[in-house]
Amino acid sequence: MTSLLLDHIGLLVTADPSAGDGPVGTLSDAALVVNDGKVAWIGPRASAPDADHWVDAAGGCVLPGFVDSHSHIVFGGGRSAEFAARMAGQRYTAGGIRTTVAATRAAPDADLEARARALADEALAQGTTALEIKSGYGLSVADEARCLRVAGGLTSETTYLGAHIVPPEYSERPDDYVALVAGEMLDACAPHARWADVFCERGAFDSDQARAILVAARDRGLGLRVHANQLGPGPGVRLAAELGAASADHCTYLSDGDVAALADSGTVATLLPGAEFSTRSPYPDARRLLDAGATVALATDCNPGTSFTSSMPFMIALAVREMRMTCEEAVLAATAGGAAALRREDVGRLGVGTRADAVVLAAPSYVHLAYRPGVPLVRAVLRGGEVVAGRYHRTP
Amino acid sequence: MTSLLLDHIGLLVTADPSAGDGPVGTLSDAALVVNDGKVAWIGPRASAPDADHWVDAAGGCVLPGFVDSHSHIVFGGGRSAEFAARMAGQRYTAGGIRTTVAATRAAPDADLEARARALADEALAQGTTALEIKSGYGLSVADEARCLRVAGGLTSETTYLGAHIVPPEYSERPDDYVALVAGEMLDACAPHARWADVFCERGAFDSDQARAILVAARDRGLGLRVHANQLGPGPGVRLAAELGAASADHCTYLSDGDVAALADSGTVATLLPGAEFSTRSPYPDARRLLDAGATVALATDCNPGTSFTSSMPFMIALAVREMRMTCEEAVLAATAGGAAALRREDVGRLGVGTRADAVVLAAPSYVHLAYRPGVPLVRAVLRGGEVVAGRYHRTP
Repeated sequence: MTSLLLDHIGLLVTADPSAGDGPVGTLSDAALVVNDGKVAWIGPRASAPDADHWVDAAGGCVLPGFVDSHSHIVFGGGRSAEFAARMAGQRYTAGGIRTTVAATRAAPDADLEARARALADEALAQGTTALEIKSGYGLSVADEARCLRVAGGLTSETTYLGAHIVPPEYSERPDDYVALVAGEMLDACAPHARWADVFCERGAFDSDQARAILVAARDRGLGLRVHANQLGPGPGVRLAAELGAASADHCTYLSDGDVAALADSGTVATLLPGAEFSTRSPYPDARRLLDAGATVALATDCNPGTSFTSSMPFMIALAVREMRMTCEEAVLAATAGGAAALRREDVGRLGVGTRADAVVLAAPSYVHLAYRPGVPLVRAVLRGGEVVAGRYHRTP
Repeated sequence: MTSLLLDHIGLLVTADPSAGDGPVGTLSDAALVVNDGKVAWIGPRASAPDADHWVDAAGGCVLPGFVDSHSHIVFGGGRSAEFAARMAGQRYTAGGIRTTVAATRAAPDADLEARARALADEALAQGTTALEIKSGYGLSVADEARCLRVAGGLTSETTYLGAHIVPPEYSERPDDYVALVAGEMLDACAPHARWADVFCERGAFDSDQARAILVAARDRGLGLRVHANQLGPGPGVRLAAELGAASADHCTYLSDGDVAALADSGTVATLLPGAEFSTRSPYPDARRLLDAGATVALATDCNPGTSFTSSMPFMIALAVREMRMTCEEAVLAATAGGAAALRREDVGRLGVGTRADAVVLAAPSYVHLAYRPGVPLVRAVLRGGEVVAGRYHRTP
């Protein structure tokens, strides 16, 4: 068991207000020691203990690794032409997903794996050390299970999204598809998934259909998540809260009752501003949620149709610019908020006993993630105490 | 004299519609040969000649290096707290520049140089191979000349911006400051500058003051640029066109007459959407300019107050999302448009005889610069035929 000292931290963000100053719990001139993949010690540089290895943060800001609690990175094909067309004036409808379903079904395992791994690595290099990955482009028993096996090779946070859309072959009999998703497909997928999710939206699944699938998944021991209220008002958010889902995702069109339901439940409001950026749609009202006391998470929604970005720093910049979150709220939402959306205690903050997942910035403050939009500021990334990206690892 | 083969280019963007397909002049499955820092050959992979060195584009898209024709990267201090406060609701006024003027005057040469070099390197790593750098945070004879010497160590495209704001010590006698800028300060700065620029805006310099400074600079052989119509309607754009300036920069508040003046002149409309992003301001109406026939450039405005980004890929993403430029228009504006704004023929496009400045993307198309916002897609950068950033240089 070797130890590692992350030294010369200009500003350490613990994402735990009780562990430091201000809303994100900061310590200045700090150091952090890792043992066995976990944080063993945090404190002032001057009193840091010795360790076997040494990483120099060069006076930069260190944050908990980002927790991206919503991605769809197992897919075949590409949709850049659809993106370019939409930017030239066309409107997004859920139907675009079908393009990716066809390409995913046609893709060999090795292609799906290589593509997903490249995206997970890309996210990691930008500081994402915990990543949820959904199925949802297979939409057959075999292809959903296949996509979840691919996801499971990359993360423990796998989500069964057989209920992404009704696939073309079931378009005339959607209830048969719901029965499949809640039955045989669930049986095939549950062993590979921690979570189940439903796209509860006009054009996808209505409240009754979503409820049937979510209850069946819950009965199989899966945790719940819901794509809710993205394209218009709807029942998704209240269904998520009622069923005790860990997260309601998108939350763009909310009634007062929806906001109250999120504030009064353990269901996290996961905002995905990359989708609004890439579909030129109105952003969710983060202030209304925060001011009501809801827990907010930020995630990328990384997918080839509506948000093909893996960048949590960009989500923070968008949250501040477009959703009027403070820099502190955005950083918490991208770390501790994401962890809450995955019901994880071991990631999303830095404290003794947490997993040693950390982002070292080439900048003195977390504010720079919004202040310097688009600039790759991640200098190094640690996951489980290993330097997994970046150039700043030194052993004395 | 050694030659270099940039091979395995999935899609080559020449930024010259006459040299390839479509609006950005593309070639598929291409290669490019560099001799003596210039492009010596472009054509199909299969018929590429041999060369001494070999760089593998790995099937990615290759574009001309980005031309960032507007930056303010010579400065002291930082303004992240002002940014965070503004995002929490305060409004930007030109007065914030004074903070940076005080810090710049107090900074040792070595600090100014190190800071500016780090930002220029950061821009280069993101594909910016030609960069304009302004003074404007010195605002004394000695400090403006000093800032231009620092800029001159990094680029040939140096711009004298003594007329950024009226510094505090001249606040009661602004015309004395105008006389200084057009007289003794110009004498000291002209040897270090290719261009002169004036911030022609309410709160900075009015039309008469701007004209006096610009005419004096033109008489000294400097080319002209104007900060125009950023914060409100004003005379800047028409003054720029009338005086034959290479560029009118910002162009956020334009009258029909302003648009016509730009369309009918050789003055490029340089749009700086990073400033609107970081000040939460309305974006310029790029479509109106393009539809009228004006030449449009995109640049970062990189500065510590209102747009602390060095990312030309991010400008492209903003141009498409926020200013309704097509992906092709945005790519042209970031390459050939920037070159036009600097009156350069040798950069901003790729053709036999141009400087071998190129960006290799980890993506199959330039569309991905907008389709994948915030993701660092630049895999390698060539400037003058040298691989100056990236990991993909191989010598056989």
